[in-house]
Order: sequence, then structure tokens, then C-alpha cells
Amino acid sequence: MKKKTVGIIGGMGPLATADLFKKIIENTEAESDGEHLRILLDNNTAIPDRTAAILGRGRSPVPKMRESALSLWAMGAELLVMPCNTAHHFHAEVQAAVGIPLLHMIDLTRDALVARGVRTVGLLATEGTVKSGIYAASLRESGLSLLLPDERGQRAITDLIYNGVKAGRQDHDIAPARAAMEDLLSRGAELLLLGCTELPVAVERYDLRYPTCDPTLELAKATVRLASRG
Amino acid sequence: MKKKTVGIIGGMGPLATADLFKKIIENTEAESDGEHLRILLDNNTAIPDRTAAILGRGRSPVPKMRESALSLWAMGAELLVMPCNTAHHFHAEVQAAVGIPLLHMIDLTRDALVARGVRTVGLLATEGTVKSGIYAASLRESGLSLLLPDERGQRAITDLIYNGVKAGRQDHDIAPARAAMEDLLSRGAELLLLGCTELPVAVERYDLRYPTCDPTLELAKATVRLASRG
Repeated sequence: MKKKTVGIIGGMGPLATADLFKKIIENTEAESDGEHLRILLDNNTAIPDRTAAILGRGRSPVPKMRESALSLWAMGAELLVMPCNTAHHFHAEVQAAVGIPLLHMIDLTRDALVARGVRTVGLLATEGTVKSGIYAASLRESGLSLLLPDERGQRAITDLIYNGVKAGRQDHDIAPARAAMEDLLSRGAELLLLGCTELPVAVERYDLRYPTCDPTLELAKATVRLASRG
Repeated sequence: MKKKTVGIIGGMGPLATADLFKKIIENTEAESDGEHLRILLDNNTAIPDRTAAILGRGRSPVPKMRESALSLWAMGAELLVMPCNTAHHFHAEVQAAVGIPLLHMIDLTRDALVARGVRTVGLLATEGTVKSGIYAASLRESGLSLLLPDERGQRAITDLIYNGVKAGRQDHDIAPARAAMEDLLSRGAELLLLGCTELPVAVERYDLRYPTCDPTLELAKATVRLASRG
């Protein structure tokens, strides 16, 4: 059975894109190069910041996201993925531009949480993802509860994402982010939802050991499963 | 100054492709997504095995490599790279198909060795790369000496690449490969040239601590340097 060619709308950000790409490969059962999935990737770093757009402080990222989607489709992609949680605020607008499915990382993550029997999760994400309410809306449908950091905690998570991971700083001060994570757990979160694709990178880089759910990993597993069906 | 869009002819193999992609990002000076390079990537796992072709036991990989090169060029790539040492046996044939430069990982690695003042290196590579003589020819031009593993050592390195990294085995027996590496060092190699893009992955996965030169890293650095010139 021929496997589907996967297209990755990437660059939001680059390290998160590399993280998804690697997780797709690692979650593919393959004994040789030829058994791996064909993957086309556009690390399109010209896509404007998603959070800035949602907060009304920047240009819409949709035209550039559509350009990448169309270009990947033209190159032969049969299935698209988008390793950026915040970008899913614009999922319907990008999906409407192409005739192939664009997987929905947020809904796939919710399904994984339901399958794991989780009831209450703490959301770690950009201000854009929090304000857009994409996780709240998706989780509510399945009866899951979502806890958010307080204002100071949110600032610490935003700082970790932008000034830690995206800026490439190995020695970033992560104490405020740790405090925000521990606060969510003490308030009853069973696990921390890494609702920004830079956060699995942060977990590894800064050795943050908390119970987590990684949407990038859930997206990688779903990609392998759906692309392998042919 | 506008930076050049990079095209990666990938899939030879997938983990090596992910390794180059990540090394390009890590070696780019950037404070935000937008300052990173635009990278187009084709993880083309349909490209036939390069070593099998060189040894006369398999189909030529050139048509599929050219397809990827042309497709990346059509999508907007202005500079191509190919994270597979063995594939460089076919460099001229792929370069001839496109009107943009295809960087030469072997020659860039030789230049890096010369810059580091190295005189004698041990080559760790697939049988295809060894038989093709691409490193021997490139290094000879600059007066560097190349040591090769003996027959048993070569079998151990081939086994590490194909049955360890490409097959995704974390628990692969690497004792024979270690012996081959130590033999090269005891025979006078100042460092081990990781002449297969799966080997930097192996070094990390199996914690192999020897003095090395990593062509994937040299290619990543050269890509950032040349693409940033605009």
C-alpha cells in the first residue's frame, strides 16, 4: 500500500519544525530509508507572528500560511500538518485554500488526553493561544477542565518561549517559568499541556521534569498513522 | 540584505536530514523566527540506496535526486544541499540538472580540516563512499592523508550505519565499531572523519567519545554562511 506524502507548513518556529520532523521519523516503524515517509517541508520563516496577529498588533499570517500550503500541495503533499499551536486559530482559513486534509493538532491532542483518562490539565502556551481560546473550546467539547496560569505566570511562560527557545538562549533564567508550572500542578492540574511547539524543546533544553502532554508528539503519531494508511 | 532560500535534498537517510536541518537552525544567529533561513526540504525516501548503486548492485539514484533538486528549485530554492556523503559520488550529475549551486559537502569538509591544521584522518563511511574514493580524491588535492579501516573494521562500521542508525535500534551492539575506531586512532589518525551522515547520529545515540570531524556540521555552517550573504 502506497503511503501518503506529508507536507509540513513550518517555520513557526524553526526548532519546533525540526522537533516535529524528528518525532515523525522516530515514530515510524522502518528498517531502511525507503520505509520512511516522504515528507515535504517548508520552513517558511516569513510567516508573521501568530500571537501578534491575534492580539491585533500585527499582520495576518494567513496569506503566507496559504502560500506554503499551496506550494506543498503542488509539490505532491497529500496530507498537511502545521507544528504551531497558535497557528490553529487560523486552521479553517488555511484548510479552505487546499484540497487535501490539514490535520488539527489541537483536536488530536484533546483526543489523546481523553484516551489517557485525564480530566484536568494546565495550559502552557503563548498569550495568542490562550486568548484565542482554541484549547478551551476543543477541550470543553469533551468535558475536560483547563487551568490557566495567573498573569505573572503567563508572563513567565511567554518569556520562556520568546526569550528562551526562539532566541536560542541555553542559559535563560527559567525560575519564573518553573514557579508558574508548579502553581498549575498545585491547583489541581494532572498534567501540563505543552500548548506551544517551542515548549517540548524547552522541556528538553532546560530539563523540566513535570507530567506533560506534548501536542507535537501527538501530531507526529497521528501523522504516521494517517499517512501509513495510504 | 535578503537571505537565500535553502533547498535540502533529503531522505538519505531521514535522521541525517533532521540532523542537518537542526544544525542549520542552531548555527544561525537569530533572535526571532523571522531572522531564520527559509528552508525547503524534500525528505525523498524513494531515492535508491547510493552504496548499492556504486557497488553495481542497485539502480542509479540520480533520476530521483534530480527530481528533488528540480522540485526544490521550482519551489524557490536558491542554494541546494544534500546531507549524504555517498550521494556526492553523483554530485556533478545532480548539479548539471539545475541552475542553482549544489554545495559540495566533501570539499567543504576538506577545507575545514585544512583550516584546523589536521594532516591525517581516519575515514568512517559506507562501503560506497570508501569505494567511490570521493574523500580520498578531495583530501589528496590538499595533501591530507586518509586512513581506512581494515576489512573487519569496515564491516563493523557498515553494520553500525545500516543495522544501528537506519534501523533505529537503540540497543545495537557497538563494540566492533568501537574497536574499528580505536584501531584507526592507534594507527595515527588525528581524528575520525564521520563520512556518513548517519554517524553524527550514532555518535550521539551511542555516546561515542572520540576526536571527530562532522561533515554535517561543516555543511550546516557553510549553508548559513553562504545563504546569509544574500
